[in-house]
Order: sequence, then structure tokens, then C-alpha cells
Amino acid sequence: MSANPNSTTISAQALRAWLADIFLRLKFSEEHAHLATDVLLMADLRGIDSHGVARLSGYIRLIEAGRINPTPNLQFTQRKRATGHLDADAAIGLISAPFAMQKALEMTHECGSGWVGISNSNHFGIAAYHAMMALPHNYIGFSTTNASPLVTPAGGAERMLGTNPICVAIPAGKELPFVLDMATSAAANGKLEIAERVNKPIPEGWALTKDGDNTQDAAALKQGGLLLPLGSDADHGYHKGYGLGAWVDIFSGVLNGANFGPWVPPFVSFLQPRADQPGKGLGHFVGCWDVDGFRDLQDFQNDMDLWIQRFKATQPAHGVESVIIPGEPEHHQSEYRKINGIPLVDAVVQDLINVGKQLQHPFNP
Amino acid sequence: MSANPNSTTISAQALRAWLADIFLRLKFSEEHAHLATDVLLMADLRGIDSHGVARLSGYIRLIEAGRINPTPNLQFTQRKRATGHLDADAAIGLISAPFAMQKALEMTHECGSGWVGISNSNHFGIAAYHAMMALPHNYIGFSTTNASPLVTPAGGAERMLGTNPICVAIPAGKELPFVLDMATSAAANGKLEIAERVNKPIPEGWALTKDGDNTQDAAALKQGGLLLPLGSDADHGYHKGYGLGAWVDIFSGVLNGANFGPWVPPFVSFLQPRADQPGKGLGHFVGCWDVDGFRDLQDFQNDMDLWIQRFKATQPAHGVESVIIPGEPEHHQSEYRKINGIPLVDAVVQDLINVGKQLQHPFNP
Repeated sequence: MSANPNSTTISAQALRAWLADIFLRLKFSEEHAHLATDVLLMADLRGIDSHGVARLSGYIRLIEAGRINPTPNLQFTQRKRATGHLDADAAIGLISAPFAMQKALEMTHECGSGWVGISNSNHFGIAAYHAMMALPHNYIGFSTTNASPLVTPAGGAERMLGTNPICVAIPAGKELPFVLDMATSAAANGKLEIAERVNKPIPEGWALTKDGDNTQDAAALKQGGLLLPLGSDADHGYHKGYGLGAWVDIFSGVLNGANFGPWVPPFVSFLQPRADQPGKGLGHFVGCWDVDGFRDLQDFQNDMDLWIQRFKATQPAHGVESVIIPGEPEHHQSEYRKINGIPLVDAVVQDLINVGKQLQHPFNP
Repeated sequence: MSANPNSTTISAQALRAWLADIFLRLKFSEEHAHLATDVLLMADLRGIDSHGVARLSGYIRLIEAGRINPTPNLQFTQRKRATGHLDADAAIGLISAPFAMQKALEMTHECGSGWVGISNSNHFGIAAYHAMMALPHNYIGFSTTNASPLVTPAGGAERMLGTNPICVAIPAGKELPFVLDMATSAAANGKLEIAERVNKPIPEGWALTKDGDNTQDAAALKQGGLLLPLGSDADHGYHKGYGLGAWVDIFSGVLNGANFGPWVPPFVSFLQPRADQPGKGLGHFVGCWDVDGFRDLQDFQNDMDLWIQRFKATQPAHGVESVIIPGEPEHHQSEYRKINGIPLVDAVVQDLINVGKQLQHPFNP
């Protein structure tokens, strides 16, 4: 139950137990079922609803289509002391990215930094899960992934890049960690969907029509339109958003032998991957730096706390209560939802009910 | 001479010889004089005129004020196999950042990746110089620096961050390298100066007044105003530009014991550093990844060439000739200026004439 009439609230515990069983029924190993559950649930807890259980039925369709392998044989190759490569054997990224991050952590124990490039993978959920694995070690975590093409390069009118997120997770002392997890487009497609649902125009600078014209139509993407890179236009530096998205694409795809640019496979089962793909699946890039590799941890923690306190005390703009530290709202949302449950909109509830029927484990929110 | 009546063109060779001698007269060692010359000249060659010889007289005033040490004792500490720290002893960043990058290269030879954090430094010129040191080794180079506070965090109305650039330099095969070198603000202050010179309003989304109101006044910064992060406003994702600038500040400052946020020392000698500084000087962060640490170089080069060719072939937007690869225009500008000389605007020429008089080595363009 929920205050919102169009949603139902379910406890994290109940959702976790049901989800883990669903993954087992999909033939995931015990370990992988719990890991995939953990990654999806973290998204729902942190309020990144677009990347949580809302994705489940789409993942199942990709498993049915043979594009996600539920029983992958992950092939890790350590190529240097501090770097390696993972062929994910068509695993879902919910599994392959934490596996790779674990390898990066081990290299960081030895070298102070460690990096793994991943090919032959699929959607990896929220980037923050993987980068935040570094935090308990007082390491700084980093993760990127490429994604189905929706974003045009600056000056272009063609879908060439995904919303290609960058995540950096930095530990603090007494304060909460700094967790930047951002798409490199001006707006994520979820924002257009929300605007469409409530029948509102979108701001200029989010999207172009398929012919490259400005549009405020929230349905632009469904009509073949394009997302714009962060910066939105030439005056406001959209070559920078393009550059960041391109960096992510090269690190996730080209560096690891995964697909890149317009060849990244679509996330939906009803669209086929292109026949002329130069690589395998989609790619991710994860790694970490040990804080102690640069400075004594205690000194760093003290200054990091000071950094956070000082930035929270920034003179706010008119009508703003206070400046926010990246990751802070998601942390508070997570604490709240752990206690008060996770609200699921009706469409997602219906989706999970259907999944439950199909896999003979009813979803009863 | 130059087609532009307000500028004079000088050959790169003549400028190089004069500059190196000026640095020697400033008591730089032979090696440091040539290195500092090389870094400044690369900016002028690549068309980043704001970061080349235009900075020379400002550097000299900081040397005179005792804030840049022309004869530094650079103290490098290797803390892990793949990480280390450099106390730059108040060196100019033109010297300390390449020194640190050389250490990062050596660690990369051994580990496949290597990283150095730098404190107690000063302005480091263009970020691209340092990151591009990785390219001849077929490594990917990375560099960041923090800078005097001018940019407000998203939701704030206070100068808390510099224009804090991120640079990533990625080698290719037959194609030119990919060199992303971007400020994390919507516009750099140089753009406001240009608008002011020609008496034009600036676009909304570049700056706020000191009270946090929108402004199109090109002189806003001179009146205590603020630059906006990449993204420009809440609708267009300026929390992302803020997050990127904050990441750079933490990596350049907090991680290395340099100053950060509002405490980063000003670049101009007439403004004093704050008395309550938590760190030493300003900071940088440099490092690299060996391509071969992830994938066979030849395969990477082939795919990187394909990436570049495919992105250049992006369907262009109306009125755009073609999509640009980051670093491409700067490369072509550099090739052009190596042959045809470097145009210097009159104000810079006058500045260099004054420097030449002061140091008894006349500047005769």
C-alpha cells in the first residue's frame, strides 16, 4: 500500500526474497541469483526506479531470446599487474560487473589501483553498485558502461551513443561517501517518459527530431528522435557532453572488444542487434584507486569531511534550501525505503505479476 | 604579420627560443626552462591561446610574489606499486605535472596503470600536454587540476570550484588520437572576456550575478559573479557539471593534500591566498592505462580507427559540415601554426614586450 494511488509499496525483504527465487527459476546459480537481486534492489532502494525491478521482464525476454546467458562461464584474463579483461560470455552486467570489480579490488590490494575492461556483456543496472564496492576498502571506485544508441554527437543528427554513465564513488570519514552517478546526456530517456505520461512538453535542449530539428515533444524518441548530450547546444558546451559519452563508449567498448557507437546491441528483445557488429555484446569498464596510495587515509578522511561540510554550507541560490552532495539524496532515499518499503508503480506491479505467473512463483505485493 | 590587424604573427621557433631564455632568466634550470616552454607553446600551437604565452606575465608576477618557486625541489613518494604522491615545492604546474606523469608512465610500464597525485603546485597550463605524454607509449593518458574558485555548485550562489578541467588522451592507429580536454563549467571565463571585448551579451546559462540571479552581462565575473557548471540549469542537468567539477576538485586537492574548493589559491598575484588554507598550493592528478593491459594493441587500434571513421561519418545536423572528433581541430590548428606561425593579439604582444624589457631580452615579433 502507498499514499500514491497509482503505486503499491512492498517491503525490501519481500521483494528481495521473491526476486532471488525468480532468478533461480531463470537458471541463475545461487550466487548469481543473490548478486543480481542485490544490484536490482539497490536501484529501487536508492530511488533509481528506472534501473530496478522495472527492468526484470525485459531481462527475461532477452534470456528467452538467447541474448542474455543465465549460466555464463566468465573468463577473466589478468594481462598486467593492475589490469585485466573479462569476457562475460553474454552474462547480464548485474553479474559481470561486480565480478570484474572484485578482480579490480584484488589488484588494488596489491598495486594501489586496479582496472578491468569487460566485453560480451549486457545491461549492468546502476553504475553506482559496482563503483561503491570500493568504499568498504577505503578505495575510490569507478565504473562506466556503454548502452544502446540514443544520443547524437554534438553537431550530428544520428543516434550514435548511449546515455553512457560515469560513476565515481569516493569514501569520506564521518560524512556520507561522495557518489557521482550520471548519464552523459542532458536528460535520460526516463525523464521523457515521465513528461509523456503527464502530457507535458519537454524543455528545449533534451532532444531532437529524427531530422535533427529542435523539439519539445516528449514522444520524440518514439518517433525516431535523438537525445542531446549534456550541455544541450553549441552555446552551452554540448561538445563536452559528447566528449564524455564518447570517452565512456571507447573505454567500455573499443578498449575491451565489445561493441561501440551505433553497433551497441539494443536493450529490448524486439529489436535485433546489427549483423555487422565489430565486437561482442556491450562493454563496461570498472576499477579503483586506493586512497592510501596517495595520502594517509586519516588525513584524507578529515579533509573529505571538511570538503563535504563546506560544500553543504555553500550560499544557496534563491529558493534552494541547500547545496546537495552527489549521492546524498540516494542514500537518504535508501535508508527511508529500507524501513518504509519500495513503492512500485502499477505498470511495474502488473509486469511482476505476469513474471510471477510465467515462472510459477506468484508476485503478491 | 597577420591578416588580423589586431594581431601579430610570430614563428613558433622564434617564440620558443625567446621563451626558453626568459625562463632561464627567471632562474629555471635548463631542463625546466625547456619543459615550461614546451608546455606553453603547445597551448599556443593548438589554438588554446588563453593558456599559452598570454599567461607568462602572470606567472612572473607570482614568482616575484614568492608564490611560484622557480627552483623547486620536487619530492616524489612512491606509495604503492602503481600510485604515488608528488609534493611540488611550489613549482609551476608546467613542470610538476609532466614530472609526475613521467613517474606514472614508469609505473604503467610495470603494472599496466600508474597514478600520481600532486600537491603544493601552481597553474599547469593545458591539461592535454600532460595526458598526451601517454600517447607515444600507446597508453591512455588522464589529467585533471583544480583551479581558483569561480564556479558555483548546482543550486548555489557562491564561487566554490574552478573551471576544473578533465583531459583524456586515447591513441588510435592510422587516425589522429582522441583528445578530450574540457572545462567542467558551461563556459570558460575566456569566453566571457571575448564577449565583453566585442560588447555582446552572453547567453543565459553561462553565469550568475554575485547574488545568484541570471545574467547576460559579459562583465558579470568582474562584478563578483559566478560561472555555472556544465548543464547551466536544473532542467539541463547542471548537477552533472557540478558533480564533474567536484570530482576533479577532490582528486586534485583532497586526495593529495593540496587546497580544494574555495581555498584554492587565486591565479593572480594581486589576490592573496586565504589565511585558513587546509592544504598546500593547488593540486593535480595524472595517470595512465596501457591499452595492452586490456586488449591486444593492434585490435584496439583497428577498432579505434573504425570508431573515429564512423563518428566522423555521423549524419550531420542542419548547417553542420561534419561531426568533430575531440582533439581534431586542435591538431590541425597546431599543424597549421607550426608552418604559418602563431598569431598573438596586441595585448599579449605588449605584455611580452614588457617582459622582454624587464628581463633584458627584448621581444621583437
